[in-house]
Amino acid sequence: MNVPLKNVRQLESYVAGQWVRGAGKAVPLLDAATGEAVALIDASGIDFKAALTHGRTAGSPALRKMSFHERALMLKALGQALMEAKEEFYALSTATGATRTDSWIDVEGGIGTLLSYASKGRRELPNTRILVDGDVEPASRDNSFSGQHILSPLEGVAIHINAFNFPCWGMLEKLAPTLLAGMPAIVKPASQTAYLTELMVRRIIDTGILPRGALQLISGSVGDLLDHVDCQDVVTFTGSAATGRKLRTHRSIVENSVRFTMEADSLNATILGPDAVPGTEEFDLFIKEVAREMTAKAGQKCTAIRRVIAPRRSTEALIEALDERLSKTVVGNPADEATRMGPLASLAQREEVRARIKDLQRDAEIVVGDPDRPVIASGDAVAGAFLNPVLLYCDMPGAAEAVHDVEAFGPVSTILPYETTDEAAALARRGKGSLVASVFTNDAKFARDAVQALGPWHGRIMIGNRASAKSATGHGSPLPVLVHGGPGRAGGGEELGGIRSVKHYMQRTAVQAAPWLLSEVTGRWMHGAKARHDGMHPFRKSLAELEIGDQLVTASRTVTLEDIEHFAEFTGDTFYAHMDEEAAKANPFFEGRVAHGYLIVSFAAGLFVDPAPGPVLANYGVDSLRFLTPVNPGDSLQVTLTCKQINPRETEDYGEVRWDCTVVNQNAQVVAQYDVLTMVAKTRAS
Amino acid sequence: MNVPLKNVRQLESYVAGQWVRGAGKAVPLLDAATGEAVALIDASGIDFKAALTHGRTAGSPALRKMSFHERALMLKALGQALMEAKEEFYALSTATGATRTDSWIDVEGGIGTLLSYASKGRRELPNTRILVDGDVEPASRDNSFSGQHILSPLEGVAIHINAFNFPCWGMLEKLAPTLLAGMPAIVKPASQTAYLTELMVRRIIDTGILPRGALQLISGSVGDLLDHVDCQDVVTFTGSAATGRKLRTHRSIVENSVRFTMEADSLNATILGPDAVPGTEEFDLFIKEVAREMTAKAGQKCTAIRRVIAPRRSTEALIEALDERLSKTVVGNPADEATRMGPLASLAQREEVRARIKDLQRDAEIVVGDPDRPVIASGDAVAGAFLNPVLLYCDMPGAAEAVHDVEAFGPVSTILPYETTDEAAALARRGKGSLVASVFTNDAKFARDAVQALGPWHGRIMIGNRASAKSATGHGSPLPVLVHGGPGRAGGGEELGGIRSVKHYMQRTAVQAAPWLLSEVTGRWMHGAKARHDGMHPFRKSLAELEIGDQLVTASRTVTLEDIEHFAEFTGDTFYAHMDEEAAKANPFFEGRVAHGYLIVSFAAGLFVDPAPGPVLANYGVDSLRFLTPVNPGDSLQVTLTCKQINPRETEDYGEVRWDCTVVNQNAQVVAQYDVLTMVAKTRAS
Repeated sequence: MNVPLKNVRQLESYVAGQWVRGAGKAVPLLDAATGEAVALIDASGIDFKAALTHGRTAGSPALRKMSFHERALMLKALGQALMEAKEEFYALSTATGATRTDSWIDVEGGIGTLLSYASKGRRELPNTRILVDGDVEPASRDNSFSGQHILSPLEGVAIHINAFNFPCWGMLEKLAPTLLAGMPAIVKPASQTAYLTELMVRRIIDTGILPRGALQLISGSVGDLLDHVDCQDVVTFTGSAATGRKLRTHRSIVENSVRFTMEADSLNATILGPDAVPGTEEFDLFIKEVAREMTAKAGQKCTAIRRVIAPRRSTEALIEALDERLSKTVVGNPADEATRMGPLASLAQREEVRARIKDLQRDAEIVVGDPDRPVIASGDAVAGAFLNPVLLYCDMPGAAEAVHDVEAFGPVSTILPYETTDEAAALARRGKGSLVASVFTNDAKFARDAVQALGPWHGRIMIGNRASAKSATGHGSPLPVLVHGGPGRAGGGEELGGIRSVKHYMQRTAVQAAPWLLSEVTGRWMHGAKARHDGMHPFRKSLAELEIGDQLVTASRTVTLEDIEHFAEFTGDTFYAHMDEEAAKANPFFEGRVAHGYLIVSFAAGLFVDPAPGPVLANYGVDSLRFLTPVNPGDSLQVTLTCKQINPRETEDYGEVRWDCTVVNQNAQVVAQYDVLTMVAKTRAS
Repeated sequence: MNVPLKNVRQLESYVAGQWVRGAGKAVPLLDAATGEAVALIDASGIDFKAALTHGRTAGSPALRKMSFHERALMLKALGQALMEAKEEFYALSTATGATRTDSWIDVEGGIGTLLSYASKGRRELPNTRILVDGDVEPASRDNSFSGQHILSPLEGVAIHINAFNFPCWGMLEKLAPTLLAGMPAIVKPASQTAYLTELMVRRIIDTGILPRGALQLISGSVGDLLDHVDCQDVVTFTGSAATGRKLRTHRSIVENSVRFTMEADSLNATILGPDAVPGTEEFDLFIKEVAREMTAKAGQKCTAIRRVIAPRRSTEALIEALDERLSKTVVGNPADEATRMGPLASLAQREEVRARIKDLQRDAEIVVGDPDRPVIASGDAVAGAFLNPVLLYCDMPGAAEAVHDVEAFGPVSTILPYETTDEAAALARRGKGSLVASVFTNDAKFARDAVQALGPWHGRIMIGNRASAKSATGHGSPLPVLVHGGPGRAGGGEELGGIRSVKHYMQRTAVQAAPWLLSEVTGRWMHGAKARHDGMHPFRKSLAELEIGDQLVTASRTVTLEDIEHFAEFTGDTFYAHMDEEAAKANPFFEGRVAHGYLIVSFAAGLFVDPAPGPVLANYGVDSLRFLTPVNPGDSLQVTLTCKQINPRETEDYGEVRWDCTVVNQNAQVVAQYDVLTMVAKTRAS
């Protein structure tokens, strides 16, 4: 190779709070379209064990000291700062071969993922340091011993080994749940595009938003890093199955049962429904989607459509429509505005794709494109890694092997015809587990059958049809709120999926104790735990004064037949079980006329509410209300209201308080059980 | 070895619907106490690939055709049948060296786990074939494209490779969630005690309760079984870390990303709190628990206490108290009623334990017991694998290695003194990840700090104290409703934990589609999906007639100031926001007097309820009620009630129906949003 390297900058790693260079011979990274050197890379000689120690001793304690909401606000600030700097990332992204549209997925898609976690973190997680997971599990009849699962952040470091195709998104989609969980990370991007990751990490560090040790970067090979991992660390990997297998069986990972998540490229399929014949909207959407998935990022997406499964009678029309669309795709320099598809990441990558196309040709013939003769509108035909879209057709897909086994990681797909719907599903499953499948149909039964047949083999299934034509986010787009990952060939991992992935960085522990101790440990009051009666109505207390276990036991009130009849008349709810003794008796649940459930909770509020203005601002809801014993005329109601959980908001003068509300009758039978949700001011003045 | 083998039965494997014998040389399995041959074992020559195929083609489809409730009822019937046959299991269990108390954990603990899953399955899972997981995730502003996670049973076979110490429980605790998920299993018990597993599988098969192919048994080595696993299979392993590592790196498991769960013995610690000085109830409980954990199953439990971490000033009293208790433990033939502790599983196992005690002696001295001179009250001193409890003391545990690394899988524990509470936690963590830790304290702060420090390193933490003295289930007892498993040395796996472990046998898939299609696929109505208006009030429909999406749009009703005042007076809820215009205005959420939340839902019921007797039997609750827009006097309310989910009960004439209830004001703003839960008859006649 003969590339001018003068004045080319060497990438640095960010380790133990310092930007450092490798001590060995740096390798040039070339612009995908021009072949010019963008940067040099090398990380040899760096003390990786010290990096792990730094993460464990500086990053981890700092993050664990923060609450979920504090971490979520940190992610929000970071996302906003990066969004302001986005043009710098777009500019450098061109060197990777990405068009502006491609870069949008990487840059803004990545930052958007940070912001999505920032939002979910505040909406769906409490403002605490540990998570309570699931319900209390009573383990004794007298309620003196119970269990409660909690989740605590692991105390090690998450090592994220990322792929070359999404240098920003690939980092951020893993970083967001990691940091939200309270774990620091060491990011190791694939060398080919590491310059863009390095730039973004530089900007992140520059903001000063992250605590020291929360994020480290390795620009180059990870050396002996993995030799030092232990059971509190996590290793995630995105990339080829071969490398993934090597990492998964790494001695330290196996011996210490280190959590290992893998997300590998898979032979994702799309299926054209039998109803989606040429001329239907679904057929047109299908053409658009296949062409888009083949050309976005020049097909270098782990979720790209590799296998196009279509009714045999439609394949001719399909090839024709795709030929027209793909032939029009302007390939060229990604910096050029007219360009619709840029080059592959490198010349080596193009050679790899060409070799895989040859493999596919064992089973299939090329029907669109010529891998050996690129036609480009701009860019350097010799130094640029250009390749036009290549569509293949495999006439006997049931008997074929290569089309279900070989991945050409570029703008390459193969059409596989099917006769019966069973055959279509069987072909999709030949991929042996994929990240995603899509189905284009307007037939609910076909959609249902397809999801049932494909579900166990896929991490995501998109159904495309006319109803979502304008809004569908597409076959190839992982969303922060949905899981990304798939079984088998796709690596068996799970990423994203909203708060689910935050838990990947936490340890679940079943804690067993007497309820009062369990409440002390979890910060959540439960039945059987201590209650505090200090003579002050708990509604008179601000968040500063209120404590878990503060309790009010109300006076009791008798429910009369007149109350029931009056409530029925007033509300209009004259359901027979309230109004007609004989009919009520015939009901399997009642022994006579009963009070309305809504009457019970209304009277309960009348019993527990403190009417004068005070710290309790509003009742914003009720959770898990169950009517457990019918209330007949003459029964009396008494309420025990106990402060169960306190959740101050970081950015407001108030917070949420959850109250356990138990309504009993004169025989101490529980009539109704529910959580009342209120907003309460932080101080009495506010 | 010279054991009489005449008339000793050879164990059989149950494969592809047949009981078969291995074709090779069978090995004798000896009674732990008497040394007599109990059975012969060999599984060579069995076609393991055919076993997998049978599970996949017969067991899997049969189980997947059943709903969760049908499977739960199947587990219940199975549990009841096994409980009736329990004495047969107890009788044979003696040969394993287990006392009646030991066998109770294995036999009734195992059957109880089946019954626990039977109960959870009906209470916590819907009566469907796929699970809906989490909330709908809207992905478009106009609600034309959404995501919903689902879980479907994997289509392969779960291979359960179990340990020798719990031949019944070890099988059943994995089988229960597997079958409930809809997956068939192949069980491979450890040879040493496989005769008891074989007996129980025989009784299971005899009941005819399980569908064909749902359960297979391998009595002997698994041969090439694992070579044939694919991404739809699951492999679980309980046993030694060394074997676990070998399985985890098995070529087929790695290449196909096969789910692999491992549960290995760990160096579980118990910590005596600084408050729990001699003379306190907690000190006495601690002594009892340590002695119990050392002697139950002769210490052959993966959860047994191996490290006893205690304040240095209490160690003398501790040794004295344990000496007294352990020395009194009657060791002998488990068939003998006076026996408190039986032999180890085999002579080989005893040799192994003795060798490990020697390793521990590098760091610690024996303070109770003599591993080389068993003192027994009954049984064969030569042929029986007897060993009395051995307690060691390590004076410098911070500097020691062996005590944190070597496991003697028998009645062996080591006392480790600590000075500060930080040191106590640090010592516990030296185990590098454990199944369980326990803490004995009556000090809430110490308990909280301990759980915080130990959480990330443990799968379960038990806090023992006076409040739960009578009811605590103990350090060593996994419960069906709590997770069992731990990080690091413990294998990094999770089992049990109620419905959590059912999901280990299912694939999570994010399904994306237009809401109407998504509703069709998931069987759950969502906003944006189709609604059906056929002129019939949905409350007039039985489960046989009702469909997801059946909808009622009510008339509207204006809320007057008089209504609010009347409701306040009637219920007693005179909160100022309802009664005082000025005070309400000062509240950050309101612009003036507002209607009570309970008034809104009461009026809503008045609008949607159909009063005459009919299929709707009762309103048994409300979920996720949120008040989203304040209702001021003069506002009017209108309700849209839509059938969201239908859950017929298998064993009753009715089922649960969940209704989406959306209340809007005159400006179409959502005022309240909630789910109404009703019981509805299956037919109109009933």
